[in-house]
Amino acid sequence: MRKIRYPNGKQMPDTPASSYVPERMKANEFLAMMQAKQQGAANRGMTLEEEVNESNQYYVAQEIAAVHKKPTPLQIVKVDYPSRSAAVIREAYFRQPSTTDYNGVYRGRYIDFEAKETRNQTSLPLKNFHEHQINHMRLVHKQDGIAFAIIRFTMQAETYVLDASHVIRFWDDAHQADGRKSIPYAYIAKNGHRIQESYRPRLDYLSVIDRCYFS
Amino acid sequence: MRKIRYPNGKQMPDTPASSYVPERMKANEFLAMMQAKQQGAANRGMTLEEEVNESNQYYVAQEIAAVHKKPTPLQIVKVDYPSRSAAVIREAYFRQPSTTDYNGVYRGRYIDFEAKETRNQTSLPLKNFHEHQINHMRLVHKQDGIAFAIIRFTMQAETYVLDASHVIRFWDDAHQADGRKSIPYAYIAKNGHRIQESYRPRLDYLSVIDRCYFS
Repeated sequence: MRKIRYPNGKQMPDTPASSYVPERMKANEFLAMMQAKQQGAANRGMTLEEEVNESNQYYVAQEIAAVHKKPTPLQIVKVDYPSRSAAVIREAYFRQPSTTDYNGVYRGRYIDFEAKETRNQTSLPLKNFHEHQINHMRLVHKQDGIAFAIIRFTMQAETYVLDASHVIRFWDDAHQADGRKSIPYAYIAKNGHRIQESYRPRLDYLSVIDRCYFS
Repeated sequence: MRKIRYPNGKQMPDTPASSYVPERMKANEFLAMMQAKQQGAANRGMTLEEEVNESNQYYVAQEIAAVHKKPTPLQIVKVDYPSRSAAVIREAYFRQPSTTDYNGVYRGRYIDFEAKETRNQTSLPLKNFHEHQINHMRLVHKQDGIAFAIIRFTMQAETYVLDASHVIRFWDDAHQADGRKSIPYAYIAKNGHRIQESYRPRLDYLSVIDRCYFS
């Protein structure tokens, strides 16, 4: 098996602003990224999504798991064909995904998750999820897959794996008249499983999955 | 395990031609679709991809499986924000996917496949696959997932499930000096498992998966 080489002390390779191309992001993520760039990207840490993607690349390269982020679904309206190999999309719109962002296979099991980070210190607002994702997680559970959320509280610098059953329960409660519209930090800290920072991959979430679902 | 219920008598919902928007397609598929539209979409049959997508919608609606086509990965270069809710992508390019097109969970197992159709009557050219997809299928097998191809010979109107191990073997042979560059029809008819046409869903590939991988 090929060894992965990690650059020492270096951030993920930086792409010069002029050629940086967001490949898989939603409108709001794109906006956030553009704002971050204006504030000086060199100064910011990696986002949760970047860390998850880096971990997945590591897992794939090491043949530990096959987990990928799904591309953002777009509604393509107009395409120019200056030549077939260089089709240019000239008009397209972001669409709401019908599933969670990440899925794949690990140790014979289907795994499926959504990664969310919040600067809110007391709770994760449920508006971070949408109904299609919740229903998708229900179906994954019904089909005996592993479904969870990776939740980061940015200010506390703490990241948790929380089984989808909790997310679904809070969602259902929120959609009754008096349900709360967020999952409290204290609840997640108690019922979730913290992902400790590690070196490679930086966000070794599968070590938590091992503990929670395979032991 | 829950019994599968099939709805009575109704077709899958039809989308009116005027509102049909290609959401997830590659440049060549997009071209083919545009040509088909010009020739009068009403007169053509469904493509394999359309049938697979229709089947997946059916499986999800019936809670039989959670299988989805991954959106086509695009490299977004330029986005206009006339207002936040209506971001318009003004320049983007098709990217090569790093995985197969379809994956999901069924009866506790991870399933992963690619759907290919050819008008060639004697073989499926291997150029229908690319190396990332082959390596992805290797890794899925290594992680004990179910990986296969759904292959349609359009002229014969025959559709088969062929385990990925066969595709991988032909691919590896082809990449030695004297390997053949295609999988013969006769080989697929012998080693694959034919999907019989059914009513709902029209392409009930999971009934073949039941036979091949669950019995």
